[in-house]
Amino acid sequence: MTLAHRPLTVEQAGERAVLAEVLARIPNGDVLLGPGDDSAVLAAPDGRYVVSTDTMIDGPDFRLAWSAPEQLGRKAVASNLADVVAMGARPTGLVVALALPRDTTVDFVARLAEGFAQGLRELWPGCGIVGGDLATSSTLTIAVTAFGSLDGRDAVTRAGAQPGDTLAVAGELGRAAGGLRLLFQDAVDASGAADAAALAELLAQGAEVAELISAQLAPVPPLGAGVAAGEAGANSMMDLSDGLLLDAHRLARASKVSLEIDSDALASDIAALEPIFGADLALRLALGGGEDHSLLASFPAGAELPEPFRAIGRVTKRQDARVLVDGAAADPAGWDPFAA
Amino acid sequence: MTLAHRPLTVEQAGERAVLAEVLARIPNGDVLLGPGDDSAVLAAPDGRYVVSTDTMIDGPDFRLAWSAPEQLGRKAVASNLADVVAMGARPTGLVVALALPRDTTVDFVARLAEGFAQGLRELWPGCGIVGGDLATSSTLTIAVTAFGSLDGRDAVTRAGAQPGDTLAVAGELGRAAGGLRLLFQDAVDASGAADAAALAELLAQGAEVAELISAQLAPVPPLGAGVAAGEAGANSMMDLSDGLLLDAHRLARASKVSLEIDSDALASDIAALEPIFGADLALRLALGGGEDHSLLASFPAGAELPEPFRAIGRVTKRQDARVLVDGAAADPAGWDPFAA
Repeated sequence: MTLAHRPLTVEQAGERAVLAEVLARIPNGDVLLGPGDDSAVLAAPDGRYVVSTDTMIDGPDFRLAWSAPEQLGRKAVASNLADVVAMGARPTGLVVALALPRDTTVDFVARLAEGFAQGLRELWPGCGIVGGDLATSSTLTIAVTAFGSLDGRDAVTRAGAQPGDTLAVAGELGRAAGGLRLLFQDAVDASGAADAAALAELLAQGAEVAELISAQLAPVPPLGAGVAAGEAGANSMMDLSDGLLLDAHRLARASKVSLEIDSDALASDIAALEPIFGADLALRLALGGGEDHSLLASFPAGAELPEPFRAIGRVTKRQDARVLVDGAAADPAGWDPFAA
Repeated sequence: MTLAHRPLTVEQAGERAVLAEVLARIPNGDVLLGPGDDSAVLAAPDGRYVVSTDTMIDGPDFRLAWSAPEQLGRKAVASNLADVVAMGARPTGLVVALALPRDTTVDFVARLAEGFAQGLRELWPGCGIVGGDLATSSTLTIAVTAFGSLDGRDAVTRAGAQPGDTLAVAGELGRAAGGLRLLFQDAVDASGAADAAALAELLAQGAEVAELISAQLAPVPPLGAGVAAGEAGANSMMDLSDGLLLDAHRLARASKVSLEIDSDALASDIAALEPIFGADLALRLALGGGEDHSLLASFPAGAELPEPFRAIGRVTKRQDARVLVDGAAADPAGWDPFAA
C-alpha cells in the first residue's frame, strides 16, 4: 500500500513518507553503499571518476503545464547522462536533490521518481540513483549530479580536436528547439501562458509535430555513441546542449582549431523541420537550436565512425577558432541562461 | 579588472561574465580535469569514492537579510563536507549548482564564490570546486555535491554501532539552534520578517549572543574529527544535522541497538546556552537543536577517543532502537523539512 493514490501534499505526508515513495521506485544500480547514510560510496574501477552537475528549474527549464512529471524525470536523467558520455565515460550513478513546493502532491513526486527509473532503464540499465536530498522551495528544482567511469581510457575533452580530424555528430539537430518553438507559439493560452489543453490540441496535429515536441520534452540522446566514440579514439567530444554553432565555437576555442561544417550533412535534420518551419528556419534551427543532447566529436582522419555518428565536416588548422558553414564564417547562435 | 565592483545584475552581465567571476575566486583543488568541459575528472586512489548532496534554499534554509553571501558560501561548504567526513572520508572536491534570480548582482555572486573559497581554505585546504552549473530561478538555490576518499579504510556508516561501544560527540550541540531561535525572535521587523538592522542590534548585545548566531550562520564543524574517527576505528558515525536526539534514534535504528546518553556530558553545551535561554530550554536545545554539524560516533569500549571527541554515553544491546537520557526514554526532537 503506497501513499501515491491519495491527494496528499508533501507537507502533509512528511519527509519520511515522501522519501519512501521515491526510494520504492528508483534503482540504486551497482553501488557499494546506497541511499540512507550521510554519503553513498561508489566504485571507481580505474582509480578515476567523471562528475557532472546540471539543474532543471520550473520556469526557465520546464513548465508543469507542458511536462508530465515522468517526462521531467526522464529528461533530467537524459541531460545529465549526456554530459557524462560526452567525456567518453560509462554512466555509473546519479545523485538527485529535489526541492519541492510544500503543496506538491506525493503523487507528483512518485511519478517524477518513476520518470527517473524509466529514464535509467531505457537509457542506461545498471546506472542507478545512489543518493539524494529532499528539501522545500517555492520553485520546483531538480538538481542532478551524474557519475561515470572511463574504464582506463583517456577522457575525451573539448580540447583535443586535431587539424585534419573528421567532424561528426551523433543524434538529431534542431528538433528539440523546433518543439520548443511550437510550444511557445501554440501550446499557450490567450495570455501566452503554458497551457495543457492547448498542448493537447497541438499534439493532435499529427506525428511530425508530436515528434518535435517529444524531442523537447522527452529527449532520447544517443548515449551509447559517447562511449563508442571514446573506444574508437575520438580526439574531442562534447554534448550539444546549446546548439551546434555555439557549441562548435566552444570546441574550436578549447582545441585552438577552426571547424568547417557542410550544411548538406544536415539534410535529414532540415527535412524533418522544413514541412513545419520552411527551409530557412529549418536550417537555422538545425544549426542553432539547442537541447537535443546530441554529441559533437572529432575523429582522426580516415577513422571509421562508430554508429550513429555521421560526418558533418572537418577540423582545420586555423587557430582563430572560427566555425565556417559551407565556407562562410558563421556567428554562434544559442542562448544565455541569464538573458531575458 | 573584474566586474564585481559594478552594480550589474547577472542578467545584464551574462553567463560567461558571471562564470568568470566565480572561476577567478574558487580553488579547483587537486583534480585531474577541472571546470570547463562537460564533466570533471577526479582521482579515486583506492578505487572508491564517497558522494553526498545537499541543497541550501532561500527561505527554508537561509534569509538574505541575515546571511552575508560569504556566510552562505562558507555554510554550504561546511554542511556538505560534514556529510563526507561523517563517513570517515577525506574531502576531495565539490560541484556547485547555483540557481540565481535574474536580478542577483554580480557582486553578490562574487562574494558567494569568495565564501566558498574561504570555507574551503579554512575547513579543508586542498579540497576544491571541480565543476558546477549556473542557472536562473525565481528562488536562490545552492545545490552542492561533495566527494571524498576513504583512503583504503572502510566507510563508517550509521549501521555499525556495537553494544558496549562508547557513544561520543565531536563539536558543539545546540548553539546553531539557539542562534536560529534568537534570529526568529529578535532579528525581525514588526511584521516578523527577517531584518538586517534588527540583526545588527541583536549582535551588539554581546559576545555570547554573537557566538550563537555565528554558529547558525557560519558553522565551523570539526571536520578533521571525522577522518580521525575513521582512522581510530569508530564503529559508527553520522553528521548531527537534525539534533542529537533525532539523529541518535536514526543511528540506533540503523545499528539495531539502543543508546544511553548522560546529560552531564552536555554540561559545556548547556552552560553556553543557559545564560540566554535558562536551564530547561538550554537542555532541550542541546538535545534537540539541529544544524551544528557536529559528529556523533561510537567507538569500541576502551578505545582512546580522537580529539575533540568526548564521551556522552554508551551503546546497549537492546534492539528496540531506544534512546535513553539519564535512564529515561527520550522522544526524538528535530524538524521535518516539509512540516509547516
